[in-house]
Amino acid sequence: MTLNKLSEEIATMGLLVEARNERGALHQLTGVIARLGADITWVAILDSQKPTETVFFEVGGVESLDPIIEELNKLPVVVHAAEEHTLRRIFGKRLIIIGGGAQVGQVAVGAVSEADRHNLRGERISVDTIPLTGETELAEAVRAVARLPRARALVLAGALMGGEIEAAVREVREKGMLVISLNMAGGAPAAADLVVSDPIQAGVMAVMAIAHTARFDVKRLTKKIF
Amino acid sequence: MTLNKLSEEIATMGLLVEARNERGALHQLTGVIARLGADITWVAILDSQKPTETVFFEVGGVESLDPIIEELNKLPVVVHAAEEHTLRRIFGKRLIIIGGGAQVGQVAVGAVSEADRHNLRGERISVDTIPLTGETELAEAVRAVARLPRARALVLAGALMGGEIEAAVREVREKGMLVISLNMAGGAPAAADLVVSDPIQAGVMAVMAIAHTARFDVKRLTKKIF
Repeated sequence: MTLNKLSEEIATMGLLVEARNERGALHQLTGVIARLGADITWVAILDSQKPTETVFFEVGGVESLDPIIEELNKLPVVVHAAEEHTLRRIFGKRLIIIGGGAQVGQVAVGAVSEADRHNLRGERISVDTIPLTGETELAEAVRAVARLPRARALVLAGALMGGEIEAAVREVREKGMLVISLNMAGGAPAAADLVVSDPIQAGVMAVMAIAHTARFDVKRLTKKIF
Repeated sequence: MTLNKLSEEIATMGLLVEARNERGALHQLTGVIARLGADITWVAILDSQKPTETVFFEVGGVESLDPIIEELNKLPVVVHAAEEHTLRRIFGKRLIIIGGGAQVGQVAVGAVSEADRHNLRGERISVDTIPLTGETELAEAVRAVARLPRARALVLAGALMGGEIEAAVREVREKGMLVISLNMAGGAPAAADLVVSDPIQAGVMAVMAIAHTARFDVKRLTKKIF
């Protein structure tokens, strides 16, 4: 079991708050949550241009959200607070595919098909992609994957990647991200955990590597290039 | 121009803060940000199980982050604060594809290929997918799309969707989400903005509908089923 596989076991609960869109509203909400002993693991502010904004928290460290919801509903800035399913429970772990449109599409076909098989057995894996071109843009996107919530693995899907992209791959791997690269020109494949020639297989292997329901561990493979 | 196309014009900046993982840390950080006049539009807490957690904010309403960064770096709980690119700038708008693995994969091929063409001309569109089965699970995922940051449009990619899924589609459309459905059995297509028979074309049209760089507006179409 890798750290990636272990880290999603931590129980979190979803908390949806409709609040008046006033400066400092988030400061008031987080004050209540901290005071009642919960740890916030994720916050998204939706509809932030409207008079009433929707704030979605994922919190852990408490048995029940009821006391927090009760206190939040007492704040003048809060219109309504209620429990909601977490995005982790609904969309699960994320595999991110970055690169050229032709290859990204084919890796996605393999990954989505394999994720379907695992999701039928109780997993929750989503497959997220962005087609991009240019060394700077690609390196920036690779680095940003480490800031994406629930991202577990990255597939580099292109024909030529190196230089700054290679450096970015080494950085995100140090932060615990699994990186699979298509077999391509440039230095990026050498920096990856695994190199796969067929894009469909690259997508399938990436999903297998992050699925609880699969018996596949990249670290136990005796070869690195397929 | 739809509201979806207008709403991404609002300028935001990214702020990366490494902080000691103490209860109430977020409350302290948001206090500084609110006091210096900035509006928080998104927060993600990464590495929340480690002694030092990384908190990523997207904020607007200020010309420069420098005074905020200076004040944050004075807090004992803060290890380091710095400006960072926003996820919106890097990954842009999101198209979400939900349904059966076979269809999701094909819609993704069309969408990724079309997003590639727009991203080459200055757009930033990413294509995110999850293969799921079951009326309850699908309805839950459709509703949750409204809580996903940067999500602009949803494609329903299956062979049979109705009942609770149809109700969920009407709900997310009311919240401003564009919904495109494959032509399929069940009541979901009737609830969508647009119905497309070919999965590749459905992906292409969905990307065209949210791209600044495309001249395509679903509301101006004289027919709804293709």
